Amino acid sequence: MNLVNVAIAGATGYSGEELIRLLIRHPGIELVCVTSRGSAGHRLEEVFPRFQGHKYSELKFAASDPSEIIAAGAQVAFLALPHGAAAPFAEALLETGVRVIDLSADFRIKDAAVYREFYGEEHPAPALLRESVYGIPELYRAELRKAQLVASAGCYPTSVILPLHPLLAARLIDPASIVVTSLSGVSGAGKNVAAEYLYVECNENARPYGVPKHRHLAEIEQELSAAAGERVVINFTPHLIPVTRGILTTIYAMPKTGVTPQALNEALEEAYGEEIFIRLQGEKGSVELKNVAHSNFLDIAWRHDPRTGRIILMSAEDNLVKGAAGQAVQNLNVMCGWAEPTAL
Amino acid sequence: MNLVNVAIAGATGYSGEELIRLLIRHPGIELVCVTSRGSAGHRLEEVFPRFQGHKYSELKFAASDPSEIIAAGAQVAFLALPHGAAAPFAEALLETGVRVIDLSADFRIKDAAVYREFYGEEHPAPALLRESVYGIPELYRAELRKAQLVASAGCYPTSVILPLHPLLAARLIDPASIVVTSLSGVSGAGKNVAAEYLYVECNENARPYGVPKHRHLAEIEQELSAAAGERVVINFTPHLIPVTRGILTTIYAMPKTGVTPQALNEALEEAYGEEIFIRLQGEKGSVELKNVAHSNFLDIAWRHDPRTGRIILMSAEDNLVKGAAGQAVQNLNVMCGWAEPTAL
Amino acid sequence: MNLVNVAIAGATGYSGEELIRLLIRHPGIELVCVTSRGSAGHRLEEVFPRFQGHKYSELKFAASDPSEIIAAGAQVAFLALPHGAAAPFAEALLETGVRVIDLSADFRIKDAAVYREFYGEEHPAPALLRESVYGIPELYRAELRKAQLVASAGCYPTSVILPLHPLLAARLIDPASIVVTSLSGVSGAGKNVAAEYLYVECNENARPYGVPKHRHLAEIEQELSAAAGERVVINFTPHLIPVTRGILTTIYAMPKTGVTPQALNEALEEAYGEEIFIRLQGEKGSVELKNVAHSNFLDIAWRHDPRTGRIILMSAEDNLVKGAAGQAVQNLNVMCGWAEPTAL
Amino acid sequence: MNLVNVAIAGATGYSGEELIRLLIRHPGIELVCVTSRGSAGHRLEEVFPRFQGHKYSELKFAASDPSEIIAAGAQVAFLALPHGAAAPFAEALLETGVRVIDLSADFRIKDAAVYREFYGEEHPAPALLRESVYGIPELYRAELRKAQLVASAGCYPTSVILPLHPLLAARLIDPASIVVTSLSGVSGAGKNVAAEYLYVECNENARPYGVPKHRHLAEIEQELSAAAGERVVINFTPHLIPVTRGILTTIYAMPKTGVTPQALNEALEEAYGEEIFIRLQGEKGSVELKNVAHSNFLDIAWRHDPRTGRIILMSAEDNLVKGAAGQAVQNLNVMCGWAEPTAL
Repeated sequence: MNLVNVAIAGATGYSGEELIRLLIRHPGIELVCVTSRGSAGHRLEEVFPRFQGHKYSELKFAASDPSEIIAAGAQVAFLALPHGAAAPFAEALLETGVRVIDLSADFRIKDAAVYREFYGEEHPAPALLRESVYGIPELYRAELRKAQLVASAGCYPTSVILPLHPLLAARLIDPASIVVTSLSGVSGAGKNVAAEYLYVECNENARPYGVPKHRHLAEIEQELSAAAGERVVINFTPHLIPVTRGILTTIYAMPKTGVTPQALNEALEEAYGEEIFIRLQGEKGSVELKNVAHSNFLDIAWRHDPRTGRIILMSAEDNLVKGAAGQAVQNLNVMCGWAEPTAL
Repeated sequence: MNLVNVAIAGATGYSGEELIRLLIRHPGIELVCVTSRGSAGHRLEEVFPRFQGHKYSELKFAASDPSEIIAAGAQVAFLALPHGAAAPFAEALLETGVRVIDLSADFRIKDAAVYREFYGEEHPAPALLRESVYGIPELYRAELRKAQLVASAGCYPTSVILPLHPLLAARLIDPASIVVTSLSGVSGAGKNVAAEYLYVECNENARPYGVPKHRHLAEIEQELSAAAGERVVINFTPHLIPVTRGILTTIYAMPKTGVTPQALNEALEEAYGEEIFIRLQGEKGSVELKNVAHSNFLDIAWRHDPRTGRIILMSAEDNLVKGAAGQAVQNLNVMCGWAEPTAL
Repeated sequence: MNLVNVAIAGATGYSGEELIRLLIRHPGIELVCVTSRGSAGHRLEEVFPRFQGHKYSELKFAASDPSEIIAAGAQVAFLALPHGAAAPFAEALLETGVRVIDLSADFRIKDAAVYREFYGEEHPAPALLRESVYGIPELYRAELRKAQLVASAGCYPTSVILPLHPLLAARLIDPASIVVTSLSGVSGAGKNVAAEYLYVECNENARPYGVPKHRHLAEIEQELSAAAGERVVINFTPHLIPVTRGILTTIYAMPKTGVTPQALNEALEEAYGEEIFIRLQGEKGSVELKNVAHSNFLDIAWRHDPRTGRIILMSAEDNLVKGAAGQAVQNLNVMCGWAEPTAL
Repeated sequence: MNLVNVAIAGATGYSGEELIRLLIRHPGIELVCVTSRGSAGHRLEEVFPRFQGHKYSELKFAASDPSEIIAAGAQVAFLALPHGAAAPFAEALLETGVRVIDLSADFRIKDAAVYREFYGEEHPAPALLRESVYGIPELYRAELRKAQLVASAGCYPTSVILPLHPLLAARLIDPASIVVTSLSGVSGAGKNVAAEYLYVECNENARPYGVPKHRHLAEIEQELSAAAGERVVINFTPHLIPVTRGILTTIYAMPKTGVTPQALNEALEEAYGEEIFIRLQGEKGSVELKNVAHSNFLDIAWRHDPRTGRIILMSAEDNLVKGAAGQAVQNLNVMCGWAEPTAL
């Protein structure tokens, strides 16, 4: 197959590093450019000794500027940049015809007012919001095929939206009853050099944070509302736990009157029974981080509690793979017409 | 003060070890007997090298039999035994006038039918259920003072019951709306030599378990129902996370119509404002495991979500201290009329 | 290429699981049989939920008997069995022409008397010792190509032998001066359900063990002696540290009179400069576990201390990959004439 | 007893926090001042929520200036400051008669030239070097009693010097043969907000560092030389491992001709048999971090290897207690004539 030239902007963070790990073994692409604010001029293997002896180990980081990506002849660019920083890259790249897969939050929220509410600033490029496609292939595969701008979904949102989407779409559960607790590994905070992410502060520790209005609620509720055909507002509490990788999500919801647990299961089966990267564990199965670590799988199990009537949905993913770089590569594969598991 | 002779049955598990750690520095007691099935005849410092050079390091483990405790002249006995094994000890000890602080589940459930439902077997000593006192001093201090048999509360239950009790007692929240997620360190499983608790299986992993009907629900719902004056049934999902110590609990509940967040806070303040071991962090504060590790504190913080109307209560404790051995010693202090923080 | 039928005996341990992970993506083989004492009759994905959705996920474990492997038509068998258990499998398999790659210690020691000294029992199949090839491709590539029985090297030995071999072979260091300290992750103990490997016992802990005569000394000294052309006896102290994967080794040795640090470096470069899986970090570089985790690389760095005259060699590997399953697959690739990095 | 007024300079680092933890339960002192560059004006419980509900929780941090300590009426000051920053504090405090226990490296090295060699700068107060006492009570108890300036020993040095001191003093081992490997928890790096100490970088990782000339060699060799009566130069390699607390040290040395292992053991027994905080585990015992965590004990075990002739000494301590704050409090107790275990 004809190689597609690919670039990564912001390749020194954890998502960028994971993108490199995956793209090294991708037979359809040529990595032509990696950018970095702090490491420009250095070789990949200097910044990441783990990549010594691998393809691209001698590739040098370019300055953090879209012109570098364009000059390198990239046809697709991954943006692994902080929110706010990605939008100007996207604008410049799209203008010259480079397709963009953005891993930041910049193009996930369709409504600029919601972006302002949750991110506390004006959206930097509101005109692009209409054309961006929310990057979960299991939900937007058709749109992704021809997308120029993909807003690859967030780590928590992927783990929350996928279990709930079919149940809301089939009107099987009461949207107002949804309560979500998630546990995330520390890499979810990015390579953030702050005291709270030091080893000594995270080890033998755990804590809830961002209560009650974590930023990821914006995209979670946007997608759940789209599924339900009505405005959905939920509780969502993220917790930091001492693992490097992984998100574990536990969801409570009340089925609508007369809805059986089997109906819920059938909705999940119908939606995801053929999906490669969603593994339905059903009513007997379980989810745990170790089963999805370093993979692009999202595992889903569920239980019905006859005592309270609620259904409990549990999901597990690797936040750096299905929750970030893996899903971005899955999006790339859909955009380029390749088999979805390529390099995953 | 006159020393009280104390024994520990089952002193080689994690709760037993923690009891020893605390009792070593207790000025009011003399540890006269420790029992063990597997280590009888061995000195304390042989089984626990960490206790070398400490008081009692040369004390020898006795066989696991109540007669050993009686022969040693114990006036109070802690039972750190598996459920089912504690009841016969309690019966034999109480008969000879030894006061019993049981850390197992054997005497926590007042209703033998509920015990059977959750533990799958007949209660071994139903006659004693009436006289046992549920061992959370903040709730049953008066009864504990003269108790002969104390059922020291479970680790999860302590972290769930204490935040909810005043709100239910004051009829401020809707009992049917309660949903609880807890995260526990691996010592919560006891010194259970099973593959699932191996380092390699727990490290870099996390998982929900016991869904939807964990055994601790029995005592949680019993105490919440007592507080609410009506039968309370809730959802509770425990999760295993890779820390040695600590329980972090996140609770969702809907205030009753017209109840303000301030009213909820006042109920917490009124109930626990003077309590030494409950630290109210309020609406701005936070909870995390590192703040309570190795201490007998339970920290409680809360948030109100105006978008959904729910209140979110968060609590943190050390499962081996406030969730087990520390609370047992606190119970001892109440029973003996000592200052509650003694040795804590 | 023509697929080679492969079997794994003892596929439920950590090395067996890692072999499966690697062989799933090996284009030259067909996995036709996996055996297990405890899980016979169960599908791979039942025992290892992480392998759901992967090739071979429906393969059923056969009973732990060489006849199962022969009946399945295997041409090569990996033995991931405890020492002592592997030998009878090897005998039976070799007799019918199945090539064997043994990951246990059974065929690593050429001298049955040394085996007895270190393992405390008679060697179960001494006649096979002559024909087995010690499985480190960087040292025995030619012999491995036609080997029928490969004794894949141990985890510690690989990390100790490879840095020292060229220096001893070139007579650059004094054998009597060698002192080695190694740190190993807990998976190095295998899936050993014993109290000392529980999460709570290993977390926030570290300890030396097997001092001063760990079993791996037998093969370490055998290979160092072969390199040096004289009997080499060393000190080697393994330590258990709380990581799942990885071995970090620090070696001290005194260069012979007149030998410069540069001569030592040249010997390493000459021996390994062209090796794919040995990455020489030189005098300025460093080694750490994260750079080799989940890979088949062995990293080597060194320093010279002009104050004492000693050289310090440091190596890092993933004990389950280059220290076990990865090296076994590398051996397979050599045996079958495939590119060494295949599936690695 | 009459309370002694105590201050801590630099109380927000890990050693400072540990000092607070210990001094809270010290019956002989009153903590009158804590200083901080970044947290001046804040209450102790704001900076360390774990200290809520404890004595001193409302104490406010003063600015980082010796005049604050003097104004508060301190009679003894602990300096938990970076090296270089402690010396000016010590000068100002000693001038007004405040006794100083410095936890930094500033007054450990008696020879200003050695300080310059290892720390790369001129010593800031060379005149004070003569009067400072090296703060290991087991070695300098008599001098400590009347010391005005104590240089509390470093974490690694304590774990290396104590096992070797009696053997060198009795001329039982060859100084040139000494090789030391140490493993340290991450808190040993202090509250250093740098990328290399992030959770994600340290978890599932381990690495040697500071090879071959770590700064602590200066004080290690100074004290070993003093013991041996000749200049001792050794190899010492520290390793970072993923635990919060603890140092594990493994030492190799060759006994002098004719010296038996029993003679070595007797030297250890004679030196430390009566010491409260040194626990000799002998030839059969073992050391591990969990046995000394949160305590002021240093455990020492040893083995003789008849194959190489070397002795292997192993020690374990909590780097924040016996390796820092605990030893500093032990020094305080000696200086004030109190029982050494007070508050420990």
